[in-house]
Amino acid sequence: MADDKKLTTRADDFSAWYNELVLRAELADYSPVRGCMVIRPLGYGVWERMQRALDDMFKATGHVNAYFPLFIPESFLSKEAEHVEGFAPECAVVTHGGGKLLEERLVVRPTSETIIYSMFAKWVQSYRDLPLLYNQWANVVRWEMRTRLFLRTMEFLWQEGHTAHVSHDEAEEEARRMLGVYRTFMEDFIAMPVITGLKTDAEKFAGALRTYSCEAMMQDNKALQAGTSHNLGQNFAKAFDLSFQTETGEQAFAWNTSWGVSTRMVGGMVMTHGDDAGLRLPPRLAPIQVVIVPIWKTDDERDATVAKAKAIAEELGSFKKHEHERIRMHVDDRVGIKPGAKYYHWELRGIPLRLEIGPRDLASNSCMLVRRDTREKTSVSMDALATELPARLDAIQRDMLEAARARLEANSIRERISYDRFKEVMAGDGAFVYAGWCGDPEVEAQVKAETKATIRCIPDPEFRSSEPPTTCMVTGRPATCEVLWAKAY
Amino acid sequence: MADDKKLTTRADDFSAWYNELVLRAELADYSPVRGCMVIRPLGYGVWERMQRALDDMFKATGHVNAYFPLFIPESFLSKEAEHVEGFAPECAVVTHGGGKLLEERLVVRPTSETIIYSMFAKWVQSYRDLPLLYNQWANVVRWEMRTRLFLRTMEFLWQEGHTAHVSHDEAEEEARRMLGVYRTFMEDFIAMPVITGLKTDAEKFAGALRTYSCEAMMQDNKALQAGTSHNLGQNFAKAFDLSFQTETGEQAFAWNTSWGVSTRMVGGMVMTHGDDAGLRLPPRLAPIQVVIVPIWKTDDERDATVAKAKAIAEELGSFKKHEHERIRMHVDDRVGIKPGAKYYHWELRGIPLRLEIGPRDLASNSCMLVRRDTREKTSVSMDALATELPARLDAIQRDMLEAARARLEANSIRERISYDRFKEVMAGDGAFVYAGWCGDPEVEAQVKAETKATIRCIPDPEFRSSEPPTTCMVTGRPATCEVLWAKAY
Repeated sequence: MADDKKLTTRADDFSAWYNELVLRAELADYSPVRGCMVIRPLGYGVWERMQRALDDMFKATGHVNAYFPLFIPESFLSKEAEHVEGFAPECAVVTHGGGKLLEERLVVRPTSETIIYSMFAKWVQSYRDLPLLYNQWANVVRWEMRTRLFLRTMEFLWQEGHTAHVSHDEAEEEARRMLGVYRTFMEDFIAMPVITGLKTDAEKFAGALRTYSCEAMMQDNKALQAGTSHNLGQNFAKAFDLSFQTETGEQAFAWNTSWGVSTRMVGGMVMTHGDDAGLRLPPRLAPIQVVIVPIWKTDDERDATVAKAKAIAEELGSFKKHEHERIRMHVDDRVGIKPGAKYYHWELRGIPLRLEIGPRDLASNSCMLVRRDTREKTSVSMDALATELPARLDAIQRDMLEAARARLEANSIRERISYDRFKEVMAGDGAFVYAGWCGDPEVEAQVKAETKATIRCIPDPEFRSSEPPTTCMVTGRPATCEVLWAKAY
Repeated sequence: MADDKKLTTRADDFSAWYNELVLRAELADYSPVRGCMVIRPLGYGVWERMQRALDDMFKATGHVNAYFPLFIPESFLSKEAEHVEGFAPECAVVTHGGGKLLEERLVVRPTSETIIYSMFAKWVQSYRDLPLLYNQWANVVRWEMRTRLFLRTMEFLWQEGHTAHVSHDEAEEEARRMLGVYRTFMEDFIAMPVITGLKTDAEKFAGALRTYSCEAMMQDNKALQAGTSHNLGQNFAKAFDLSFQTETGEQAFAWNTSWGVSTRMVGGMVMTHGDDAGLRLPPRLAPIQVVIVPIWKTDDERDATVAKAKAIAEELGSFKKHEHERIRMHVDDRVGIKPGAKYYHWELRGIPLRLEIGPRDLASNSCMLVRRDTREKTSVSMDALATELPARLDAIQRDMLEAARARLEANSIRERISYDRFKEVMAGDGAFVYAGWCGDPEVEAQVKAETKATIRCIPDPEFRSSEPPTTCMVTGRPATCEVLWAKAY
């Protein structure tokens, strides 16, 4: 598709805007296999930086990486009753291998609890072997009928943490810790504020004791569940005989946690920050942070501006330095394309800063710096770039988070509203609505049926209203807790 | 298995030694799925460092990462005749998804040429869109009956480079360049010298014009094909209509290359460097480079030596610094385990340097440094560690490569031997034998049938004998080239 065709606007059709943007910014593409996507270099570059940042955070909290098989014997899934019920309908099944029909069918992993805990059971004998703090970077497959690039695809890339502990409390602490790691990552890297909290029983992971999640607000006011962390209790330990000798010599089952985030976060980034001109990439995740566009009319001018652009890129972005010390720069010296078309190209792709260098800039030893997020233009001395560029990138990263936070606040409803008003809100622009709930799952199901809104979570204390609700928004019965309602992806 | 049971020696049974070592050093384990392995944290830590180093090298040569689907429509494989013949018998096939029988069966990717070039065809219109220089980190599945941990497993992890070019020569240059990258990586990181060269038609990749490989010598004098790079010609471009408009306005098919290395290299590392006491990890790949063992008798001594050990680890190995600036250190302060048992534990796992700190060392402000590769012990001043440790790690890395190179030379036969002598060599200790070949594939097949040796490659010029052979070792006919014979994994 040509770069010069305007995107559908967010206001006109948010969903069409998203699909067009992901394709036209070349984040991803449809593949010949229904439901599977191709992640193109720009999208994968964002994912790689997400991986690197998370991996460092996992290691700093004591976790190690390992790798477990893609295939899971079908019988394994069945060992945990809720788990098989949740996942069996979504599985891709291998029935033939090496030209022969298999004796036992193999499921392509939709998640790896069963295979991992069966191995843990082999490795753990004593309390001395615990905790096991493992993480795996992997692809998983869940058969989906209605797929959307990044948000819901048949195959996706993710990490899944799997841990085993001696006690419930230690597992609970781990599940909470990793939820906190996710929140920090989403705020500090994706510049995407999230509400953390506990899932209701209706929404928890198949096989978990408790599920916690990070819920982010997209620009259509719908929630995106961007990461989950589960206290699995002893459900899988019992199913796979993951037991150990305690310090006092008894046998006990271990306590497990699992937690995961996926390429879905790339979709979250797009829907949090994108505008009608294209992507806006947070600098810490942008594969290219600064694009330099040399401007010329004559060949001499071209030689001079391109040489200067390359010299700057070499000095500040040299590959020889380690990535965290350098600015990721790109010089767009393509011939036969006008500067305006280049601006459009890189705006669509969300590159945080653009640096324009024309012949007059060379003469004055300055250049024009343009922020993608605010479109603000400033003339900057060439000599100041080494300090100006990192400072601007930091400012953009910070401002993007603040803008997203302001939007989240502006579209949250914390005053107590009636269920009739709630229905109007959900039928209209939508919102994150904080309300009292009586705790009845049937009420939860009724609201979902009537409004498509679901309880995203029972928010953690720091997100709760200063005045706790006393009654259920729907039934008027006494509230057992405050919940966050929203429509969701 | 207990740490204190001795390993089978290499001399007694090299194959048993390898299997035991991989399991007992906890590099990998068997999984409940036949043929699939579990890569444990130590093995995965080595693989992660391989990935990081290679990825940097790929990016420095202009490549970008992307991700393509795990599943490939069965009909895609068939579009390139040789390719389907080579891979179809090895495929795992998904026939059911989401509880239903699929209309078209999906193959779990054994390699991704077909799906990737079908996408390239969609993206490339003009010569301006070329070259495309892509890489993918992924898991692949090839149905194998006789599997061995790391060396040959049904599922393995690898990277596959896929590129498209305007001309044969540019593709050839790329295939050769990446072979060179592999060689540099294997020598500089795995400390594993390799012979590079061209595969014969019998051994080339299914669908390639030419295949190049890196061949390493294991300690049983067998060859391990550690990486391959293919000039695919226009075979796949024609099958998937990957064509472009040339600078002069004609339509032409693109020229492709693909190249890959896998977790098999971890097995190569084990068989290149391991000894009868366990692994020997090259420092650049070792997840832990220096293990500090504090030694104590009394509780006071324990407090003092452990505190000192942790202070050293904190100072030289702090996680806060970026990994390339720090030494990867671990303090083994486990209680109830004697120092000797700890030494044994870390020797088995191949940690390059051990630092022993006892009460007397504290008094003299020195400590004992033990190299895993040579077992050399030196007393070193505590104050000199910041310079001594990096210097020793560099020396170990260098010495391990030199030792492997000396072994490769010592077990290569470059003088012209008779086919009878050749048969004796291959029936005995084996060797890398350089010999003349008449170029007849039937001769190649005959030698394989009679001796199990195969032509590993037609070596690149720098590996050829100074006196080129004039006759074929087997037939006595004029030699068309010099080839490298060996038994192989």
